[in-house]
Amino acid sequence: MRRKGLACMAAQAVESATPAPSDVSLGPAAALSCRECGERFPLGPIFACAICFGPLEVAYDLPTGDPEALRRRIEAGPHNIWRYAPLLPVPPDVAARPNLNPGLTKLVRADNLARELGVTGALYVKDDSGNPTHSFKDRVVAIAVEAARAFGFTTLSCSSTGNLAGAVGAAAARAGFRSCVFIPHDLEAGKVVMAAVYGGDLVGIEGTYDDVNRFCSELIGDPLGEGWGFVNVNLRPYYGEGSKTLAYEICEQLGWRIPDQIVIPVASGSQLTKIDKGLKELIALGLVPDRPYRIFGAQAEGCAPVSRAFKDGHDVMCPVKPDTIAKSLAIGNPADGPYVLDIARRTGGAVEDVNDEQIVDAIKLLARTEGIFAETAGGVTVGVTRKLIEAGLLDPALTTVVLNTGDGLKTLDAVAPTTGPSAIIRPTLDSFREAGLA
Amino acid sequence: MRRKGLACMAAQAVESATPAPSDVSLGPAAALSCRECGERFPLGPIFACAICFGPLEVAYDLPTGDPEALRRRIEAGPHNIWRYAPLLPVPPDVAARPNLNPGLTKLVRADNLARELGVTGALYVKDDSGNPTHSFKDRVVAIAVEAARAFGFTTLSCSSTGNLAGAVGAAAARAGFRSCVFIPHDLEAGKVVMAAVYGGDLVGIEGTYDDVNRFCSELIGDPLGEGWGFVNVNLRPYYGEGSKTLAYEICEQLGWRIPDQIVIPVASGSQLTKIDKGLKELIALGLVPDRPYRIFGAQAEGCAPVSRAFKDGHDVMCPVKPDTIAKSLAIGNPADGPYVLDIARRTGGAVEDVNDEQIVDAIKLLARTEGIFAETAGGVTVGVTRKLIEAGLLDPALTTVVLNTGDGLKTLDAVAPTTGPSAIIRPTLDSFREAGLA
Repeated sequence: MRRKGLACMAAQAVESATPAPSDVSLGPAAALSCRECGERFPLGPIFACAICFGPLEVAYDLPTGDPEALRRRIEAGPHNIWRYAPLLPVPPDVAARPNLNPGLTKLVRADNLARELGVTGALYVKDDSGNPTHSFKDRVVAIAVEAARAFGFTTLSCSSTGNLAGAVGAAAARAGFRSCVFIPHDLEAGKVVMAAVYGGDLVGIEGTYDDVNRFCSELIGDPLGEGWGFVNVNLRPYYGEGSKTLAYEICEQLGWRIPDQIVIPVASGSQLTKIDKGLKELIALGLVPDRPYRIFGAQAEGCAPVSRAFKDGHDVMCPVKPDTIAKSLAIGNPADGPYVLDIARRTGGAVEDVNDEQIVDAIKLLARTEGIFAETAGGVTVGVTRKLIEAGLLDPALTTVVLNTGDGLKTLDAVAPTTGPSAIIRPTLDSFREAGLA
Repeated sequence: MRRKGLACMAAQAVESATPAPSDVSLGPAAALSCRECGERFPLGPIFACAICFGPLEVAYDLPTGDPEALRRRIEAGPHNIWRYAPLLPVPPDVAARPNLNPGLTKLVRADNLARELGVTGALYVKDDSGNPTHSFKDRVVAIAVEAARAFGFTTLSCSSTGNLAGAVGAAAARAGFRSCVFIPHDLEAGKVVMAAVYGGDLVGIEGTYDDVNRFCSELIGDPLGEGWGFVNVNLRPYYGEGSKTLAYEICEQLGWRIPDQIVIPVASGSQLTKIDKGLKELIALGLVPDRPYRIFGAQAEGCAPVSRAFKDGHDVMCPVKPDTIAKSLAIGNPADGPYVLDIARRTGGAVEDVNDEQIVDAIKLLARTEGIFAETAGGVTVGVTRKLIEAGLLDPALTTVVLNTGDGLKTLDAVAPTTGPSAIIRPTLDSFREAGLA
């Protein structure tokens, strides 16, 4: 019912001009399974259930046996997401293939921020601005690249308004794919440069981001799109799995322990649901002790359909028209919203939102306490953390991890109006003395 | 003789209002020694020889004994520059102190770029855009922070036109220092935001960058500057040592082996001289086999005093007035230029320069081949590498490492005029077909 929007895209995908190869080897990935009805499908470039139109996700034959041996194998692996290859839909030799090799970004112990927020437990920021193109998108694209290889695609594509375009362009360049990325034609000049510099084709579409998405869905069903892997459409089941690595890394970096509380931004909601999936896998594999954890979702007030539904006690969301400076979270009808609601409620978490002013304040708070310059999505998670503590929903005495998924250099405009010099002086000691800064 | 410019600053430093603590513990750092006359001084916030006004550098009591044990100790250390603490002027417990923990950035095997350049040997890009504030400056500032702690400074400062301002602001925030950074008052708005967002004081000086530097030198000698550590002035001997970690990392990442050829950007020349120092230390410690290597310096044609002197066979440089898009390399009178000339000649390397157009081409070449978006300084090294190969000065059959010291997001303006969409279309398959991109 709540998946109506996917129905026509699913029908197209099933009829897609690109045949699914019969012999696909993606490590422990065994099949695709429907998250709604459980029906299973062979691995292929499909993303919606042919029975009920529910979204598909990767089902695994995960390694069994001694957890200690698996943990040692992971710890001896490369310093990037490929150390978790045994838990991802990628071939075993993935680390040797040309790839941007994202991941194992810093988990920063944020004692200064903790003091400001009144947190007495351990507070950490998982800082994904350290990825190759400076956002968490490098993780999901890296997995999509391997699926694209397995399915014989030669062009990597996506619709995007920012981070994803750069991540796809860069990954395609390194991995030897052609790329063709679609953006609204009126994107800011800086973002166009970040997307176009990797030398793939960048196509501006005269229309809104919704028009861009609709066009991409059409292209997938057309012979024109033959051989094209759209990382966030026909490769989406694989792509999404990249977010699990955030869960793996956080736990490993905490000494193979699940934190009590995690604050995660919600755009489509995929990242949050996959982090939950990753935590459950670690428990099932015996890699971490089974203990309760709370997952919190963070949205911008100007695009808060999940937060609204959470507060209203609803299971479904009312789509909204986004109006917020947090552009990377501006998805008005989040596909995974219902799952986010389930997870927040099941784990004793919550979904909250902050307004644009609070986002900017939180960006600056994180910068001046920890020296981390986050994009607006990072302002959302830090701002929501503060609000959740004030509301008594997040326990300041427990261990908490807050995600920063992107880089402030990409959203300079958000802080520019309120960020400037303390003083302008003449180059003399007297002038400096008068400024009162010594 | 060639150090005249430092003379008056040295005199000021010797008379500085800030006394050098008598009991400073900075790990293996034993003293400061003059690079010209060899005179030694106790560790302190001084930067020029009181005898001959030559620049001071850190002299060490480096670890003796089994190289294998030291190698194992390093490999078991943290995934950042502090794994090399036994070779740096920092206290042994440095990794436990609040710090941005830069380093161990990716050494990218650049096979696609190699093909384009006709390189048949192994080609690597050492990509320092992966540092916390996305430039190599995080390395040098991290060391300066520890020196500032040791000397009891409470304010971190610098003069800067870009990367350094952000690196100092961020490091001070994390490490618990106040910061006060000086910039020319007419810096581009984006760069002001990057410098100011960390919440320290940012002071615009009405004047040129030279005026800013002169003002900072005055401030160091005045009681107003008491308790102030200027990372690139009175902490410079320590700060500079951070660049040694580039040499350590490159060799460790190559399996404890010195590459045949390294291409390094030249601004003040400090980075290149310290990388050479680091290589020599690794050889002396028995951590790498002693074998010949060639060091190449890369400058922008619009600010190429060292390249000019190299080609003219001179030992001294004529200062120039910089006019290049590579702002982070725009030092018209490089303090370490003579040392760069010595090293390039001694190792059989060279110093070369490329013009602005070649810089932009090289930025795009690196982006489209390896998915690495470099700042202009990275365009300089890649462009110079190409030119050196064409001139027969760099051997394409050997192992070569090219440095990228910063991030393209910080110098978008350089590529913006020539980087845009391939096409603008209506959101229809027909319109896409007409564009000829399928």
